[in-house]
Amino acid sequence: MEKEIKLFAPATVANVAAGFDILGFALEKPGDEIIIKRSNTPGIRIINQSSFTSMPLAPEKNTSGVALQAFLNHLESKQGFEITFLKKVKPGSGIGSSAASSAAAVFGANELLDRPLSTKDLVIFAMEGERCASGSAHADNVAPALLGGFVLIRSYRPLDIVPLPTPEQLYCSIIHPQIELKTEDARKVLRKQITLQDAITQWGNTAGLIAGLFMEDYGLIGRSLQDVIIEPIRSVLIPGYENMKEAAMTAGALGCNISGSGPSLFAFSTSSDKATHIAESMQKVCSSLNIDSDIYVSRVNKKGPVITG
Amino acid sequence: MEKEIKLFAPATVANVAAGFDILGFALEKPGDEIIIKRSNTPGIRIINQSSFTSMPLAPEKNTSGVALQAFLNHLESKQGFEITFLKKVKPGSGIGSSAASSAAAVFGANELLDRPLSTKDLVIFAMEGERCASGSAHADNVAPALLGGFVLIRSYRPLDIVPLPTPEQLYCSIIHPQIELKTEDARKVLRKQITLQDAITQWGNTAGLIAGLFMEDYGLIGRSLQDVIIEPIRSVLIPGYENMKEAAMTAGALGCNISGSGPSLFAFSTSSDKATHIAESMQKVCSSLNIDSDIYVSRVNKKGPVITG
Repeated sequence: MEKEIKLFAPATVANVAAGFDILGFALEKPGDEIIIKRSNTPGIRIINQSSFTSMPLAPEKNTSGVALQAFLNHLESKQGFEITFLKKVKPGSGIGSSAASSAAAVFGANELLDRPLSTKDLVIFAMEGERCASGSAHADNVAPALLGGFVLIRSYRPLDIVPLPTPEQLYCSIIHPQIELKTEDARKVLRKQITLQDAITQWGNTAGLIAGLFMEDYGLIGRSLQDVIIEPIRSVLIPGYENMKEAAMTAGALGCNISGSGPSLFAFSTSSDKATHIAESMQKVCSSLNIDSDIYVSRVNKKGPVITG
Repeated sequence: MEKEIKLFAPATVANVAAGFDILGFALEKPGDEIIIKRSNTPGIRIINQSSFTSMPLAPEKNTSGVALQAFLNHLESKQGFEITFLKKVKPGSGIGSSAASSAAAVFGANELLDRPLSTKDLVIFAMEGERCASGSAHADNVAPALLGGFVLIRSYRPLDIVPLPTPEQLYCSIIHPQIELKTEDARKVLRKQITLQDAITQWGNTAGLIAGLFMEDYGLIGRSLQDVIIEPIRSVLIPGYENMKEAAMTAGALGCNISGSGPSLFAFSTSSDKATHIAESMQKVCSSLNIDSDIYVSRVNKKGPVITG
């Protein structure tokens, strides 16, 4: 018998300033919308009805196809699935486009198979989608895409995923300047050696950020939202970065940094009005440089994927 | 009129594994016991009635004298004080001997002057005692010595001190092998450059440790108590380190690492019995190497300095 559900999986922000490679959080919007269907024929079929036509449809090249296949292999299941993308986070934005797809696919399939696994256990399969997308099976987008809220990846070997609390009043402004910046390239520019002194500064801020989330201390979150190691290098690849950040801070942001490996920026604030003002202020800078941009304003998403139909 | 109080200030563990330079916590024992007295003659007078005869008595060379003078300078006070040391944490142990002295002095003087400053505000003066003791005004011993519990030093410029919660069932075992290891020397052996990959592992564990404290998740605290940067280098300076650590883990420790810059080790566990067993197991290793040692077992101290008379 065929059975289908429609669902939403959120975009996410990884590399949260001093949380490089270990921390991410989910957004209320944007996100992927898909329909996933059990089909009577084996194999995975991808259908793209979103506005992004470049998505590979071969399941072994498609992030959600790869993630879903890893999940099915684990279950030793021959069940066939059909995934239809209705809306898609723009690829290459730095807000977890591939992660949203992978999360949507494995979450939906797990639902259709009556939840053989917990949502947390799905992370490892969604990570295979990330490996397909960027060459590295990182979890700091897929874990929050699946679990919602802030999620810490304490360790990869063994995988240790720690859901963190989400302060109630935390709003996020996102700007996605329409320039191309590949994750792989953004990773290549990083230095392999850093100074111990910078590392100490960094993990002081990592610790402050984690403490701030638990204490709902917005001042501490803001003060901790600093990155002395990655941001100084990667921000050079984003035209107008310093000016956008300055505009965000002037507009009342607690802090502002690169989302994922860029080119998007995220900024935190404590109200919807402020968050909108911050996003618009960053967009003005972008416009003055003749760079098109998308902006999004939302709370931090506590739910992860949601079945919408 | 002369006025005096007797007080206890705790020993402390700094550099808590992945919390190098940014995290410390206080012990219930051991600690310094002092009597501090307002005197009618200006200046600071140090009297040593403890068993450690090597303590400098000139106030400008004595950690507590330096800390107290910094405090008095800030207040623009000419008040004279007399400090008598009754018991003293062994210098050079790695459990905050100088910090206990500095904390005791400034806390006591602040009390005798009817608390012109908050305890948190005293940290910066106690740090001057640390500068005198080790050449570096670090705060990861003096802050927990003054505030009790776990304390994060998120940043030094500006100084940003964040008191953290202390899990109720957390016990600490300390072993102090009687070998000499100067803080300055232990600092010299550190590499100035580290790999980004190690740094990421480290701040994943920093984040895990902070989250574990907030969640009272003893398993997470244990898993996070790893240091891939400092411990591999400094542990070489401590004879029998690996065997002591292994003995602690076998005896049921959540985790074990170097206290401060050594030579002491600390281990966490969740009961008084386990903590005693762990301390004794580490001591056996020390004895087998013909190294004398002191051991201490206590909960994490939540109070900081206490007036005892």
